[in-house]
Amino acid sequence: MNDRILSALFVPLLAIGANVARGAEPPAADRPNVVVFFTDDQGYGDLGCQGSTDLSTPNIDRMAAEGVRFTSWYSAAPVCSASRAAMLTGRSPQGAGVPGNVSSYPGRPGMPPEQVTIAERLKPLGYATAAVGKWHLGSAPGATPNDQGFDRFFGFYAGCVDNFSHTFYWDAPHVHDLRRDDQEVHEDGTYLTDIVTREALRFVDENRAGPFFLYVAYNLPHYPLQAPQRILKRFAHLPPSRAKYAATLAAVDESVGDVLARLDEHKISDRTLVVFLSDHGATAEARGDGPIGDNGPFRGRKFSLFEGGLRVPCIVRRPGVVPAGQTRDQLACTSDLAPTFLAAAGGTPDSPTAFEGKDLTEVLLRDAPSPHASLAWSSAGQDAVREGRWKLVRNGRDDQNRPVVGPDALFLADLEADPGETRNLAADHPEVVERLSGLHAEWAKSVAETPTPGPG
Amino acid sequence: MNDRILSALFVPLLAIGANVARGAEPPAADRPNVVVFFTDDQGYGDLGCQGSTDLSTPNIDRMAAEGVRFTSWYSAAPVCSASRAAMLTGRSPQGAGVPGNVSSYPGRPGMPPEQVTIAERLKPLGYATAAVGKWHLGSAPGATPNDQGFDRFFGFYAGCVDNFSHTFYWDAPHVHDLRRDDQEVHEDGTYLTDIVTREALRFVDENRAGPFFLYVAYNLPHYPLQAPQRILKRFAHLPPSRAKYAATLAAVDESVGDVLARLDEHKISDRTLVVFLSDHGATAEARGDGPIGDNGPFRGRKFSLFEGGLRVPCIVRRPGVVPAGQTRDQLACTSDLAPTFLAAAGGTPDSPTAFEGKDLTEVLLRDAPSPHASLAWSSAGQDAVREGRWKLVRNGRDDQNRPVVGPDALFLADLEADPGETRNLAADHPEVVERLSGLHAEWAKSVAETPTPGPG
Repeated sequence: MNDRILSALFVPLLAIGANVARGAEPPAADRPNVVVFFTDDQGYGDLGCQGSTDLSTPNIDRMAAEGVRFTSWYSAAPVCSASRAAMLTGRSPQGAGVPGNVSSYPGRPGMPPEQVTIAERLKPLGYATAAVGKWHLGSAPGATPNDQGFDRFFGFYAGCVDNFSHTFYWDAPHVHDLRRDDQEVHEDGTYLTDIVTREALRFVDENRAGPFFLYVAYNLPHYPLQAPQRILKRFAHLPPSRAKYAATLAAVDESVGDVLARLDEHKISDRTLVVFLSDHGATAEARGDGPIGDNGPFRGRKFSLFEGGLRVPCIVRRPGVVPAGQTRDQLACTSDLAPTFLAAAGGTPDSPTAFEGKDLTEVLLRDAPSPHASLAWSSAGQDAVREGRWKLVRNGRDDQNRPVVGPDALFLADLEADPGETRNLAADHPEVVERLSGLHAEWAKSVAETPTPGPG
Repeated sequence: MNDRILSALFVPLLAIGANVARGAEPPAADRPNVVVFFTDDQGYGDLGCQGSTDLSTPNIDRMAAEGVRFTSWYSAAPVCSASRAAMLTGRSPQGAGVPGNVSSYPGRPGMPPEQVTIAERLKPLGYATAAVGKWHLGSAPGATPNDQGFDRFFGFYAGCVDNFSHTFYWDAPHVHDLRRDDQEVHEDGTYLTDIVTREALRFVDENRAGPFFLYVAYNLPHYPLQAPQRILKRFAHLPPSRAKYAATLAAVDESVGDVLARLDEHKISDRTLVVFLSDHGATAEARGDGPIGDNGPFRGRKFSLFEGGLRVPCIVRRPGVVPAGQTRDQLACTSDLAPTFLAAAGGTPDSPTAFEGKDLTEVLLRDAPSPHASLAWSSAGQDAVREGRWKLVRNGRDDQNRPVVGPDALFLADLEADPGETRNLAADHPEVVERLSGLHAEWAKSVAETPTPGPG
């Protein structure tokens, strides 16, 4: 497939012909901006457009009405750092060198510096790049956002912080963690989502001429579930924990709405590819007020390779280019974003092994079949693979993050008939188990043998 | 000693003769209001008037200039709950049923309901009572501030909360903890010290006709060390952790200043006995950014029965009644406050064993000798006793809260010659060790045999 031709498909429909020099990279003015809204611990069911009836997410729902919503979108991992590494590199967590969560404490390593982020790939194409909000990919030299391709960073290195004091409280020592690039700044008392929004808008304003890449990584709805009184009071009719959860998503939705409105004000919405997705499924952790988030019909939660840990909302919007109001059931994965963005920007990967994810342009624009015959995962002793209707999970973890033991430790589900992975068909279909096991082994071997990318 | 005569001494000097019916309780109008400012983890050296050169505490320093400052004031315990129980009951922590810290989690028991607080003792004398800020004496039925004699409560039950989100983060589950009486309220994003001040002022306004008892228990300078940007920036010249610490104390000082100013506005300063003290010495905990607080010349920190854990600032002010600008080196203890307050209010204890602390009226007003021949403590396996110049510490804990072992596990110091408890004289003065050991045993026996007070 010719990346350059595909990339041209991301040029606004009205502009095709006028602006595109076919067979060459499109001129910089035609390269779309890219904005990624990335939420944290948001379950598959946690949006109005995903079926929620008590949340309030009108702006994100509007994104879905104006774009493509994926119904079989998979996170690359059921934990934060690994999922983020996959999004930024277009690789599997293992391929990105971040198989699990990294330390949130100052000066700790994270994603290896030699990994090449999509920000690093877009910069030579003229993109201004910024990350705002959560990083959670290390803070040692070489691992920071500024070291990984982002011209600008405003946010926190840790995995979760108090939304008002910006303090990381996992354990002692507690760490205040709010930074503009590598400088600690204090905005004690200001709601973190408001800070994230302000910095995102500022970056859009300053780079409205484009092209730009903006990664907006919210702290929410990850615990601690906090929101300003003005938002909380809108949900006073809900049970207290769900009210707080709803308020955090309303805050995120307001933020998304503010950024989309700013794109409209600058008349660059049709030149901006916007993606909204969650890093993985909702949690049942005690720190998170228990199982307040909604993973829809799926089994398992954050940490699990059952569907509830992996299947997440994902919406892609670019008015006039990406079709409006459509859904895609094609198999797709967070690792696909980086190659898709690079294609949209008219760039090409520097090697055939640069990405493990796939360019989704054809899926998005023309409802083409998934570029994936299968998807595979490994996380904390669990393995999983999906091919067509079948999903095999080995050593899966249940809703309380306990290993499933006994015969169900090898669990084969027919997702078409049983999306909740309730009936183990492994004994009935040994040939499927064998084929899927082989696919996983092949994938694992391939990741292990893929060379680490060079410095970006 | 006749409590009623002593209590008359707390009537403003100008009013003596005019208003006091000698031999009877003074009329309600003559009963002074009582305000207690109680800080958390503030070390002996952590005030301008205690020798600090980099902090800014002008309002508290002014209290000292206008009142009596104690230089040998001892906390009843080196941990929060135990010290608070002693202040409120006038008993030792053991006598109050709170020998150590109580759980901060919802619904947990704390100080036994049958303990009688000074609030409970003052109410029958016509006092309005309020506690604002930290409780940390349990939240089960019977243990809450409202159950322990306070008409009003606005604050948090836990041991420490984030100052902006009011969330208790010790471990999972995290708990939002801000309450008006027993109702959870949200003021997410508002600085806790500002809330405490607002509620204290509101209570003063509503009860300015008096008499009232107001207990103002700050969350600071206990970790987390947080302050609004407007205060933090005043300390930008200090090292980061010390700057945060200084900002928390400046916030407390502003709050104290606001309350004192309001007493002046209502022209009730001369009718109000105001006490400022810390619950125990400064900490070296990792959660608290390490040893940022200053315990002056003393050995040991929070948790320790060496002087650094116990010796705290204490200032008492009542213009026109308590002498201005004086210091007292008399042995005094946080357990003395309740009997002193009751005497000032013209009340009498309901039994000879109601209090273990002593009425300090004579010390305050006329520089009388200490009512204590000795003081004794037990805490988490440590014992200590002070008599005159001598202090004996058994199984003391060092600056890092590690038990002192070997010969120094029995440590006798001459505090006059060696306030830092650096030289162990136990081997040189076995007779002193024996006498002090006997005093401790006698105290411990007396506490064990003292009946629990009835319901208040």
